[in-house]
Amino acid sequence: MTKELKAYESLEPLFNPKSIAVLGASTNPHKIGYIQLKALLDGGFVGVIYPINPKASEIEGITCYPSITAIPGEVDLAIFCVGADQIQESLKECASKNVKAAIIFASGFSEIGEEGVKLQQELANIALANGIRIIGPNCVGLVNTTNGMIGTFSPAILAVPLHEEKAVGYVSQSGAFGVLTYMAAAQKGLSFNYFVSVGNEMETEFADVVEYMIHDPKTKIITGYLEGAKDSKKLRHLAHEALDRQKPIVLMKTGRSTAGSRAAASHTGSLAGSDLIYEAFFRQSGIVRVDDYEDIITFSKLFLSNKLPKGKNTVLITSSGGRGINEADRCEGVGLSIIPLCEKTKKEIKKHIPSFGSALNPIDLTAVASVTNPELFIAPLRALVADPDVHNIILTEFPLGWDADHPYLQEFIDICKNSDKFVFITTFPLEGMSVPKGKDELEKNGIPVIPGDLNPIKGLAKLVEYSERLRKHQQTIHQEDKSPKKTIAIARESDSILSESQAADILDLYDIPTTKRGIATTVKEAVHLANSIGYPVVLKIDSADIPHKTEADAIRLNVQNASEVMKAFTEIYENALKFKKDAQINGISVQEMLPEGTEVIIGATKDPNFGPVIMFGLGGIFVEVFKDISFRVAPLTRADAEEMIEEVKGKALLKGARGKVHADIEAIISVILKVSKLVTENETMIEELDINPLIVYEDGIKAADAMIVVSKNLKEKLVVRG
Amino acid sequence: MTKELKAYESLEPLFNPKSIAVLGASTNPHKIGYIQLKALLDGGFVGVIYPINPKASEIEGITCYPSITAIPGEVDLAIFCVGADQIQESLKECASKNVKAAIIFASGFSEIGEEGVKLQQELANIALANGIRIIGPNCVGLVNTTNGMIGTFSPAILAVPLHEEKAVGYVSQSGAFGVLTYMAAAQKGLSFNYFVSVGNEMETEFADVVEYMIHDPKTKIITGYLEGAKDSKKLRHLAHEALDRQKPIVLMKTGRSTAGSRAAASHTGSLAGSDLIYEAFFRQSGIVRVDDYEDIITFSKLFLSNKLPKGKNTVLITSSGGRGINEADRCEGVGLSIIPLCEKTKKEIKKHIPSFGSALNPIDLTAVASVTNPELFIAPLRALVADPDVHNIILTEFPLGWDADHPYLQEFIDICKNSDKFVFITTFPLEGMSVPKGKDELEKNGIPVIPGDLNPIKGLAKLVEYSERLRKHQQTIHQEDKSPKKTIAIARESDSILSESQAADILDLYDIPTTKRGIATTVKEAVHLANSIGYPVVLKIDSADIPHKTEADAIRLNVQNASEVMKAFTEIYENALKFKKDAQINGISVQEMLPEGTEVIIGATKDPNFGPVIMFGLGGIFVEVFKDISFRVAPLTRADAEEMIEEVKGKALLKGARGKVHADIEAIISVILKVSKLVTENETMIEELDINPLIVYEDGIKAADAMIVVSKNLKEKLVVRG
Repeated sequence: MTKELKAYESLEPLFNPKSIAVLGASTNPHKIGYIQLKALLDGGFVGVIYPINPKASEIEGITCYPSITAIPGEVDLAIFCVGADQIQESLKECASKNVKAAIIFASGFSEIGEEGVKLQQELANIALANGIRIIGPNCVGLVNTTNGMIGTFSPAILAVPLHEEKAVGYVSQSGAFGVLTYMAAAQKGLSFNYFVSVGNEMETEFADVVEYMIHDPKTKIITGYLEGAKDSKKLRHLAHEALDRQKPIVLMKTGRSTAGSRAAASHTGSLAGSDLIYEAFFRQSGIVRVDDYEDIITFSKLFLSNKLPKGKNTVLITSSGGRGINEADRCEGVGLSIIPLCEKTKKEIKKHIPSFGSALNPIDLTAVASVTNPELFIAPLRALVADPDVHNIILTEFPLGWDADHPYLQEFIDICKNSDKFVFITTFPLEGMSVPKGKDELEKNGIPVIPGDLNPIKGLAKLVEYSERLRKHQQTIHQEDKSPKKTIAIARESDSILSESQAADILDLYDIPTTKRGIATTVKEAVHLANSIGYPVVLKIDSADIPHKTEADAIRLNVQNASEVMKAFTEIYENALKFKKDAQINGISVQEMLPEGTEVIIGATKDPNFGPVIMFGLGGIFVEVFKDISFRVAPLTRADAEEMIEEVKGKALLKGARGKVHADIEAIISVILKVSKLVTENETMIEELDINPLIVYEDGIKAADAMIVVSKNLKEKLVVRG
Repeated sequence: MTKELKAYESLEPLFNPKSIAVLGASTNPHKIGYIQLKALLDGGFVGVIYPINPKASEIEGITCYPSITAIPGEVDLAIFCVGADQIQESLKECASKNVKAAIIFASGFSEIGEEGVKLQQELANIALANGIRIIGPNCVGLVNTTNGMIGTFSPAILAVPLHEEKAVGYVSQSGAFGVLTYMAAAQKGLSFNYFVSVGNEMETEFADVVEYMIHDPKTKIITGYLEGAKDSKKLRHLAHEALDRQKPIVLMKTGRSTAGSRAAASHTGSLAGSDLIYEAFFRQSGIVRVDDYEDIITFSKLFLSNKLPKGKNTVLITSSGGRGINEADRCEGVGLSIIPLCEKTKKEIKKHIPSFGSALNPIDLTAVASVTNPELFIAPLRALVADPDVHNIILTEFPLGWDADHPYLQEFIDICKNSDKFVFITTFPLEGMSVPKGKDELEKNGIPVIPGDLNPIKGLAKLVEYSERLRKHQQTIHQEDKSPKKTIAIARESDSILSESQAADILDLYDIPTTKRGIATTVKEAVHLANSIGYPVVLKIDSADIPHKTEADAIRLNVQNASEVMKAFTEIYENALKFKKDAQINGISVQEMLPEGTEVIIGATKDPNFGPVIMFGLGGIFVEVFKDISFRVAPLTRADAEEMIEEVKGKALLKGARGKVHADIEAIISVILKVSKLVTENETMIEELDINPLIVYEDGIKAADAMIVVSKNLKEKLVVRG
């Protein structure tokens, strides 16, 4: 890798090579070595092509070379059309020829198991040592539709005609699905500028390609198909950068159903499915998650109109009452608001539509608008554009006959262009029957025309969501956390679950409010502690061996006086030993008895992809029965913490529902952020954490109980807390 | 109406007329009187056509008549191609000519307001007096594609070519949306046998058409677009009949978003949105509700395979790992189970697929199956068909080259035909590129081939749901409730809300367990009552004027002895009068204090469409914060009551979650059914009812409080309870 280049700059020879060597170029039209060469020729690649074939002098009229070293000029990119066994030697030759990049199609590497992993590692070593950027192996290739760099053996890529506008990059972890998406998108009116199938991601991974596209001025949107990120932190960092540049990243992430639950000691751990974490990650990073390749098409088409929706208030204009209601349902189904119109707007619209039409939202111009009076489409639009409450206007029909020169079409376009409303047309999906003549003119002027079966309303909802995230991002001043970093060291013997008092000590260290408490090893100590804390108190066993105290009957609540303390002490001790004969008991924890409040849970667990993640939920049935929880990947911003609270349905109870007092939301945010700091700063040590319950009051908050699981691998390193 | 005919039989002249008079037939090709006539001719109508036009002698070579009475032969059907003002006189002439049915296109009736309503009523009177069945007015018409009866002025209907199989009827409350659906369905491979636009439903309504189709042997599926049923009870009755005949009714019901909440005194009343009730009604009636016209197409195509899925266990066979995962997500998203395969099946599949393939579900045959080794599709299918745990097999790819005569295709078909598995193929939606050659042969043999953009997986989920409902329906013995009907009469003065003791008396009448209780008007009576009930007791004000007792501080729980009763009595009385000076107080209710249990709510309210509906939910936050409730339209079957309990998420708490005892589910079912009987038998009287809380124990159940709102209109009729 040339040292001066940034990582993404060194990918340039893959996307814009000046010269390409096709290794294994063939004269046999059924071999990929021929198909690849032909694709470059048919695609009109603007650069030099060097077929490598020791047995042929020319293929399709182009001079062949016996080896890469025999090529007279420089070679930017080598495309390997040979089997797995022939690659290593050739790659070494490429290195000696100073080839900058390569695409390797061949299978037979890490995907086939141990032997392949070894082979792949050897290739990777050569690539890294010589700074060769590589796509693959086990991939379909890389295509740049703007310069004819059709680096693929998939002939299907050339089978679909493309459109003029090419500003959408696409990167896929699935080759076959990627090709299908490329083709379907082209058929439905969206052409990618780049198509990259990353295969085994040996040297260049998914996120590297995203990074290239972020810095590429020709790419306005980055789309892709993701099964799992290799380096989630890198992707998160890139997502931030993409927001800075206002380039949406739109990903179809599969594997929702394979979440599964892991064995975990904490609530947080058992509730954190991999897909739930991805969902949280996408939300907090502003990555648009879509369900389908169709959503990539509609989102891109809407975004390329060069306007962003100002909000979710949506008005429908229809000439079929039925279709209007149907699309209104669809809007509300994806979170758009079909707003009631104000009197002024309604009055103005009523003036222009037939008496049997409707000036309510959806606005029904009636069938006469479609048939005899298409001018009816103009005046209501004008009224809506003048209404500040309206953000989006969707037309479910449009006069089919208005061509580019039609004065009404021009008037329609002018009204739209001079407003900040997001306007688009969704046609009924009748092939060849429902596309307005003026479609191209409309789209050129930023008014997308999208068939209903591509579900543009879902696309609008996603675009509204993205726009809101973008606004938030732009308003947020991103401050580094400058408070001193704290490190934890804990005395621990047998288990990876800490005793409650150890856990509480850690919370103290991070200024998370805990109960007044102390450990008593004798009855006398317990009474002294209780007297100094003040009655009522709680007595609990303190033992890492008994994490579930209720189960062991080793907890007494609401202990009122000294004699009750004495009784409780003895019972707890006896019950604990009955429960686990050899339990190592630190003593009995005497704590203040907290008054009633609203119980919440704040927890953390370690995700294999993302590292520490934070959970928030209301206590008890909310978490256990309704799974009414929200996650975020740490470290969190204040906005993340606020959103976590907003996301749970039970938040009504924090805001005074059912006679509860309005809880101290600020205190909850503060603890969420402190937990985020705690687990981020001690990532290698802390596996799981539950503060449950954390009791919130009208003013203030206190952790009534906490459980922390530390990494088993760290056992030996732990020392007494300093 | 000929008296011997059943209602649906009298619709026969609309669908299969022997002769048609076209009133207002025109020589002007732009007029609907011409378009309609031409449609019958072009459609190849098999019967006599009589154009009516006093000014023309013939149109398109067919003899014209000056009036309907001038026609020599009999006329089964009159199609009115004239304006609203000309219809009444002509309809009278039709009556004198004994015309059996009519289609009226014209607008200008009930949809334009008062004047139109009057005009429409006059037409209805003529129709009813003379037994003329009428479709319309304000409709697009009626089409029978099996005999060329193209009774519509919408030329679009003729613009799409139809397919051979025509077994799906379609009825729409929206003309324009109906035509669009008809056309889109035809373009996507589904041809309706009947298309009916019911317009203003003056004489023949939506449900009448459904009834005709239920009895029509040519119709296998009844589909439609519904905004609101005119007669919900009729539709419910028909749905039952359709289940008997195994004909699915598949409706796109719009207006989800317009539910809105009504002002209501009870929880049940305020939670019952119109769409929620429709949803419950469809579920309990076995009507398949779909979101989109596309779902009508896929459901129909799958159903017409003549197999029903045996359950939701689904296996995917793919040759693209990415697409497999994606479709698996989609399956689980709609409630299908992507089951893990048993060892035996996995082992058998592994034998036949490449080593880098996957024998897990989704089964990945890898790209070689699509490209070089299509025979790989056979063996895994055979293994899956032999596995009793598998219900459905979905192929996301299929060898494109296998034509009808290909031996592998025939083998594939044989395996499918000899099994009870539901098998279909969902192709990637690439126009003209991904349809297997053998498609027709496959479909002829009951293996649907559906492009992925029509979402056949959603269709399968709906079909699984329908099949389950059908099985349940067939297993249920429908017994009439033979227990004696009870009627309620209550003394009531001012308000429509009954006092708690009156409400409790009504529950007693229906054997719904209530607390031991009595009304005391003096302190002495209260003490006597408390002594005989046994301590602790509850004291509450009993006044229809104070329905919310807590708010008035007019309730005391856990009253332990006589002196506490005396204190409580006085305080409650004083507080009640403080709260409402002129409250009419019956006395103070002394009740047994119920021990703790699990709190549920059972309620009823009156829906404007469906009449009494029943709600079930768990108490408190479950209803208020999570809206975790289920509804059914009364009267309920036992299966309905069971399903209501199954539907709420909080049911886990009834089954022992969070340390609760397993609640007496049988007792809950019993109270649900008793409430259903109560509100059904007293439909005109009871507006709303809440039993809240109803406390469920491990063994038994008791209503701790109840509120009943009776109809204001009945005020005068009420007398003292007998």
